Amino acid sequence: MAPRSRPQDSSRTTKASGGTARLQRGSPWITVVVIPKQSIDNQLGIRGRRGDASRMQIRTATDADWAAIWPFFHEIVAARETYTYDPELTEEQARALWMSPSSAAQSRTTVAVDADGTVLGSANMYPNRPGPGAHVASASFMVDGAARGKGVGRLLCEDMITWATDEGFRSIQFNAVVASNEPAVHLWQALGFQIAGTVPEAFNHPKLGYVGLHVMYRPLP
Amino acid sequence: MAPRSRPQDSSRTTKASGGTARLQRGSPWITVVVIPKQSIDNQLGIRGRRGDASRMQIRTATDADWAAIWPFFHEIVAARETYTYDPELTEEQARALWMSPSSAAQSRTTVAVDADGTVLGSANMYPNRPGPGAHVASASFMVDGAARGKGVGRLLCEDMITWATDEGFRSIQFNAVVASNEPAVHLWQALGFQIAGTVPEAFNHPKLGYVGLHVMYRPLP
Repeated sequence: MAPRSRPQDSSRTTKASGGTARLQRGSPWITVVVIPKQSIDNQLGIRGRRGDASRMQIRTATDADWAAIWPFFHEIVAARETYTYDPELTEEQARALWMSPSSAAQSRTTVAVDADGTVLGSANMYPNRPGPGAHVASASFMVDGAARGKGVGRLLCEDMITWATDEGFRSIQFNAVVASNEPAVHLWQALGFQIAGTVPEAFNHPKLGYVGLHVMYRPLP
Repeated sequence: MAPRSRPQDSSRTTKASGGTARLQRGSPWITVVVIPKQSIDNQLGIRGRRGDASRMQIRTATDADWAAIWPFFHEIVAARETYTYDPELTEEQARALWMSPSSAAQSRTTVAVDADGTVLGSANMYPNRPGPGAHVASASFMVDGAARGKGVGRLLCEDMITWATDEGFRSIQFNAVVASNEPAVHLWQALGFQIAGTVPEAFNHPKLGYVGLHVMYRPLP
């Protein structure tokens, strides 16, 4: 598949302000209304500092990108907080898993890069199941810890939704979203995903103990 | 893993009757009460003709069993009504998929055999996910069309629950139970499974069109 770049949406250049405060003076009643935009955005999964998103680009990953993906892949998997991957995966196993996520022709790995070409995050996408389930796409997303809060995950997922739509999938399903990973859950919800159900205690979190795994899905137009 | 046989439960020898009819005569009021036991049992996932179950046995599959499994595996997958497997799977691909369901040490394929040693059905079982998801078991079940309604699926699943409990799993999850496969859904429910959620239209049924896929789970003691 040819690399594709997405047209930049100028609305993404809007910087989230620290908030808006209205103070009514000259009255015995002082009403202070603080609208913490950044906070509301975060609750909605709309991460702040999106000015950076306007300089980011999503493109299909090449073999050469793996060297930049592996450090944050390894860090994320070793943390055991968000992925049901084996923390003992070797680099070669991880490369095969991430860069070739499916034997299906309809599969793809992407990277988000900044204006300097630095890899900030990566996604892969593929049919969730073969045969009678092949009309449903799935995907995985990882963002470098140093690049979080810049809208990288959102941009990767928006691109994935576009890809799945263009490829003719009827919906997208995420099979194992860790319930305690609230930034991810809220971002997927902001991007149109619903929680179809939660399998209780299906994820063993190193700090929180057993937490649920959400199955999330999003119909496509 | 050593093959295991399960103690036979004599209660399984109860034959389901065709039903009970009461007809009150000699009265202007004729009350006919028909209790279709077989039908009620089917609704509860308790399949009739369970006299056969007392002569069945579950054992770990050997390579030699594949020749007996492949015909009904192929028939079930080609029908596209209950499994999200690729209907174009070759026999060798199918053998690898079914007989070696996971690279995990904790995995196993079983067969249900009758008193003559005829293979009536098969199951496989494995950790549903690696790493932080490895405390949840999963499984797949197939019963030869000629042996349906004899309690084969129930016996295979009861054995699987025993295996998962003995192996120390905390729960069992089925990831993709076709919602229109009501006998299976009801049997799993009768065996303690709950529907955690349903992904709408995730399965493309050749007769019914797009139907849901249930995620089902069962805590273990």
